[in-house]
Amino acid sequence: MAPAVLTEVATEVIIPVCAVVGIVFSLVQWYLVSKVKLTPGGGGGSNNNNKNGYDDYLIEEEEGVNDHNVVVKCAEIQSAISEGATSFLFTEYQYVGIFMVVFAILIFLFLGSVEGFSTKSQRCTYDVTMMCKPALATAAFSTIAFLLGAITSIISGFLGMKIATYANARTTLEARKGVGKAFVTAFRSGAVMGFLLAANGLLVLYIAINLFKLYYGDDWEGLFEAITGYGLGGSSMALFGRVGGGIYTKAADVGADLVGKVERNIPEDDPRNPAVIADNVGDNVGDIAGMGSDLFGSYAESSCAALVVASISSFGIEHDFTAMCYPLLVSSIGILVCLITTLFATDFFEIKVVDEIQSALKKQLIISTVLMTIGVAVVSFIGLPTSFTIFNFGVQKVVYNWQLFLCVCVGLWAGLIIGFVTEYYTSNAYSPVQDVADSCRTGAATNVIFGLALGYKSVIIPIFAIAISIFVSFSFAAMYGIAVAALGMLSTIATGLAIDAYGPISDNAGGIAEMAGMSHRIRERTDALDAAGNTTAAIGKGFAIGSAALVSLALFGAFVSRAGIETVDVLTPKVFIGLIVGAMLPYWFSAMTMKSVGSAALKMVEEVRRQFNTIPGLMEGTAKPDYTTCVKISTDASIKEMIPPGALVMLTPLIVGTFFGVETLSGVLAGALVSGVQVAISASNTGGAWDNAKKYIEAGASEHARTLGPKGSEPHKAAVIGDTIGDPLKDTSGPSLNILIKLMAVESLVFAPFFAAHGGLLFKL
Amino acid sequence: MAPAVLTEVATEVIIPVCAVVGIVFSLVQWYLVSKVKLTPGGGGGSNNNNKNGYDDYLIEEEEGVNDHNVVVKCAEIQSAISEGATSFLFTEYQYVGIFMVVFAILIFLFLGSVEGFSTKSQRCTYDVTMMCKPALATAAFSTIAFLLGAITSIISGFLGMKIATYANARTTLEARKGVGKAFVTAFRSGAVMGFLLAANGLLVLYIAINLFKLYYGDDWEGLFEAITGYGLGGSSMALFGRVGGGIYTKAADVGADLVGKVERNIPEDDPRNPAVIADNVGDNVGDIAGMGSDLFGSYAESSCAALVVASISSFGIEHDFTAMCYPLLVSSIGILVCLITTLFATDFFEIKVVDEIQSALKKQLIISTVLMTIGVAVVSFIGLPTSFTIFNFGVQKVVYNWQLFLCVCVGLWAGLIIGFVTEYYTSNAYSPVQDVADSCRTGAATNVIFGLALGYKSVIIPIFAIAISIFVSFSFAAMYGIAVAALGMLSTIATGLAIDAYGPISDNAGGIAEMAGMSHRIRERTDALDAAGNTTAAIGKGFAIGSAALVSLALFGAFVSRAGIETVDVLTPKVFIGLIVGAMLPYWFSAMTMKSVGSAALKMVEEVRRQFNTIPGLMEGTAKPDYTTCVKISTDASIKEMIPPGALVMLTPLIVGTFFGVETLSGVLAGALVSGVQVAISASNTGGAWDNAKKYIEAGASEHARTLGPKGSEPHKAAVIGDTIGDPLKDTSGPSLNILIKLMAVESLVFAPFFAAHGGLLFKL
Repeated sequence: MAPAVLTEVATEVIIPVCAVVGIVFSLVQWYLVSKVKLTPGGGGGSNNNNKNGYDDYLIEEEEGVNDHNVVVKCAEIQSAISEGATSFLFTEYQYVGIFMVVFAILIFLFLGSVEGFSTKSQRCTYDVTMMCKPALATAAFSTIAFLLGAITSIISGFLGMKIATYANARTTLEARKGVGKAFVTAFRSGAVMGFLLAANGLLVLYIAINLFKLYYGDDWEGLFEAITGYGLGGSSMALFGRVGGGIYTKAADVGADLVGKVERNIPEDDPRNPAVIADNVGDNVGDIAGMGSDLFGSYAESSCAALVVASISSFGIEHDFTAMCYPLLVSSIGILVCLITTLFATDFFEIKVVDEIQSALKKQLIISTVLMTIGVAVVSFIGLPTSFTIFNFGVQKVVYNWQLFLCVCVGLWAGLIIGFVTEYYTSNAYSPVQDVADSCRTGAATNVIFGLALGYKSVIIPIFAIAISIFVSFSFAAMYGIAVAALGMLSTIATGLAIDAYGPISDNAGGIAEMAGMSHRIRERTDALDAAGNTTAAIGKGFAIGSAALVSLALFGAFVSRAGIETVDVLTPKVFIGLIVGAMLPYWFSAMTMKSVGSAALKMVEEVRRQFNTIPGLMEGTAKPDYTTCVKISTDASIKEMIPPGALVMLTPLIVGTFFGVETLSGVLAGALVSGVQVAISASNTGGAWDNAKKYIEAGASEHARTLGPKGSEPHKAAVIGDTIGDPLKDTSGPSLNILIKLMAVESLVFAPFFAAHGGLLFKL
Repeated sequence: MAPAVLTEVATEVIIPVCAVVGIVFSLVQWYLVSKVKLTPGGGGGSNNNNKNGYDDYLIEEEEGVNDHNVVVKCAEIQSAISEGATSFLFTEYQYVGIFMVVFAILIFLFLGSVEGFSTKSQRCTYDVTMMCKPALATAAFSTIAFLLGAITSIISGFLGMKIATYANARTTLEARKGVGKAFVTAFRSGAVMGFLLAANGLLVLYIAINLFKLYYGDDWEGLFEAITGYGLGGSSMALFGRVGGGIYTKAADVGADLVGKVERNIPEDDPRNPAVIADNVGDNVGDIAGMGSDLFGSYAESSCAALVVASISSFGIEHDFTAMCYPLLVSSIGILVCLITTLFATDFFEIKVVDEIQSALKKQLIISTVLMTIGVAVVSFIGLPTSFTIFNFGVQKVVYNWQLFLCVCVGLWAGLIIGFVTEYYTSNAYSPVQDVADSCRTGAATNVIFGLALGYKSVIIPIFAIAISIFVSFSFAAMYGIAVAALGMLSTIATGLAIDAYGPISDNAGGIAEMAGMSHRIRERTDALDAAGNTTAAIGKGFAIGSAALVSLALFGAFVSRAGIETVDVLTPKVFIGLIVGAMLPYWFSAMTMKSVGSAALKMVEEVRRQFNTIPGLMEGTAKPDYTTCVKISTDASIKEMIPPGALVMLTPLIVGTFFGVETLSGVLAGALVSGVQVAISASNTGGAWDNAKKYIEAGASEHARTLGPKGSEPHKAAVIGDTIGDPLKDTSGPSLNILIKLMAVESLVFAPFFAAHGGLLFKL
């Protein structure tokens, strides 16, 4: 067995350097976005107080460009959105902060109690010749890692939101110059978020490992056990971000649409609609902050899963630091690869017509995947010994470096396939969405039936892709293979996030154009950006779900190893009841979140109706609506409603593990995983398809589309109903399910020592 | 270990006697129904050619009773429905006949090839001291059992349809005398079907066992292996019945509603609507024939699963015939219990007002469950030895008779709980449906969101009930416990079917009243019967799904035993990929069936629109529509569309078993089971809730309901959209999923020897 080519010192340098490069690149992108001036003070974030006097940067371009009034309006609206989003996130963080503290105490108490809070060193679990640090230390460091992950997640989401609200009005203004300029601005802003998040996640994890090593020294088993807290912290914040943000955004969106579009027949994002600001705030807190936290969580968890499995392999036992850091090296190369990929969208090529947007985004996926394959090859051959052993549920398995290379690649390429399939089923350039649009001819009912069928059908290929990835990576390298396959899928996260964040930014840009009363040409451009954004949002969700499935399985494997279970036999009643109840949890969870959106939307509808009925001159545009009350309704509803689903996810592993033991918990995790993936994929694709079917009718780009339109026709009304139903499916319940499956797995992993020692109370009685 | 009290001779007598009693009782009910005269010739089935001259039986009762015109019209409509249904079923049977022959050959070839078509006797698998019959004999007898099951299933469905079409117009006519009379007629007709089916299924199975014994003699292992073909035959016919019938009924229903109710604003079942006869035919071929075949399949499979597991227990090895027949004894007592229960509805009490219908049906469930508990106790204590051993995946487990009693009871009572929960979520007497109705205020979108959330939520308690049943019965008696728990849930099948068939009969009765132009009072009565029928239909589906889950698990256990697998470990890649792909199958299947309904409905809509546009005087009621073309569209569409989903279900076990082997197949079965149950329950409850939310608004029975109505108001239109979406969910894709999970399990069981011998080709390469 030849050692890795890369020395330990080189590894210690490469990882932080790549992370810093990522952060610098993201700051450069930010600088480029900030060159679009909103105020003479120089685009400095949200301090848009001084709104007089503009520099003449924008003058003498296309029509309407030199209209200072428009710029003032855009700045005002942007400021309102940014304030609303900031205020919601701060409110959310107050509640989440309480949860964080309580849960941190819980982690410490549960894990500390494993050895009765003893401060004595103990024999290691896997290498019994060595002494390991006491369980109390692992409890303390897990708690610290949890807090670190939680805080990093919050910062990621918050910064993402700030960047998005900073960029949306700028995208609108650039849209006056042409669709290409607007695209670049929106995409750069997405890239700021993508790189910041990927680099930040990597850097914090790297620093944490190095700091923890100061205490743990040679006890890598304990070290990486404690590090798993980082994944738990990241994901638990993501849960509240996704659920709270998802309810917020959809309550506002559904409420605004139901009264505005359906009852009052005013266009989307019309400034007369009192819920319009809340709707735009929602895009930022749900789709941006929530999604950012979610993918950060996936990334943190897959890294942790890979590290904890590696720590009990020959890397960990022989203290081969470079090989141990293989997961981090893959992520580091990923940042460089994404950096080059981004330049293809922003610098190497220029978008001139609307039709090129979709293909430009698609190229991002392909380029990043191809380049990453080369990057992974390099890392695998210089960062790993030619062969090594992996712990595979009690037996040792020999793995070659080329096998691990294939494991990462299979995840990476499965991600691309999932992306393409999602695109096929949710883009209005292909027949599935066109069929759904066509079914609107016979009304909303057939639209819904066809849309649901489309979502169900869209599950097939992604599941086969995931199944093949699992089979290949497991066959090569057991659970470590699965963990690195997940990491492979997430290795291009910076590009994935850039594409993903681009969507809501364009959506907001369109909203701002409408509200600022800009010409229809501008609105058409932002609509085209937004339509592509809907598809990319669906692709992003596809990625998030696919990676969540692999991550959860890897975490599940790590949990089983740590809990000391030999087999998870479906034919034992303990496991089977876990399996069937676990498969039910996504439904329970979805019922809660869908109902929450429904109830919150009803409240919003009442408020919007009330304002239309009681504020004289509102419909005529002579009076301003009361935006703040609507923002408050969304905020209150989402905070209140995020608690029950959050509790379901956080408490299930604790209750099952404590009362029913690790076998039943294994069943629950497996059941939730295999069932949740299907619900999540079908929900998000159904919703995406409905949204784009509506856009297809509205845009009227083909002969067929024109027979269904225009806006306000019966088929269009049916399409709007489908779109509204899809909103909670694709933006609340669907994406939250990723977190359900990941979070339960990582929580089980963190608490595994406790469950193994004291769990299964009910069966013990 | 004390032997059973009941002697072998007594057992040999009791079972056929109970079956014959059931058949006689059903004939008596038929006679009572036939006393309602439609024609002077004496209600002899479908030969309503001579429609002149009526006896004066009906004269001088309530208003309209002596209107001979109405009777003529009812008879005409009934005859049209009956002809349409018969013609569809015969067309279906032609295709299904081809399938039956091909599949029978397949069974023979696959199973015959296990020992290379050798005619030599071989060592038994479980009792190695004995010689067993050759595999070729088992192949031949399995094929015969398959054909027997298939034919019995077809006869059950066909007779059910005949009875229902015989009874619907009679129910309409009785509704003129009062709601109680109509209820009794509809319920008696349901009972005819329930008892005929239960008794028939038991009798054929009993005769088959005794005939097979003539050849097999002491080789009970081979005997009961061959008998499993009976379950496969029953279920594969049920598949086509459910899917074909489901597509038929919903294409017609959705098509009729979309044009009639939504576009033309004419009432449901208006004779001017060209699709109205197809719609009523659909109720009979889908809800009656399909459901009859489905429950017959469940009953046959759970009996077979129990028998095959028992045959390798101490019953089988020691040739204790009475104990071996315990599953059949439970079913026999079930017939007697249901007989008494039926009298409570038809003779002991009389319904006077509409509000009593729902509670009368509910009482049926409670009474049958309570009486059956006593019945099971008797059978368990006289039919079983006090203790015996059961084969539990390689080890022997001692079981006491009281434990087996509890196993049956836990299934029986879990069924009742599932029934009550289903009622709670789908009856408009409770808040869930009322909330859904209320959400129609803000339009169809919120109605759909609330309805989907309701369906998801309704999964929770049934899954816990199933999980507890599994845990208890498995802990007591391993897979045999699960099989008898499933049998317990199905032991009151005669009552369950009576309640279930009652729904579509009432629905048809209402349709006939509308078409015959009877007064609104009559229509209100039949509507009340129908609303209760919607709930009971949902309860019936709940039972069907719950029992399907238990049956599939028992079959799965039997399959694993026969395939010689020791553990089904989720943590092996072979099993896990099976699990995740299996969990995907219900979605694939639902996508196919939903899309089929959608496409067929679109064709129907076009035809109905064409008739309204081209037939002058149709809207005015002066010209008659062309019913036959609509019937033909439904027939053609359903026959064509049932093939792909049918192929998916039938081929999956064969392909997976042959190419991937028994471990992966185990994963597929477990995955499809735990995921399919959720999809099926939520789909059927969502659909039921939407249907009753619409009925709640239409009936306007409370202050709240009246604020949403009347018919034609905006909330009512939104409710109609929900109802239409729910149609394929509750009547096509939802109930077909039971069959998906059961059928794949029983097919795997029948082919297990082949897969164990020659399966897993891909991994062998």
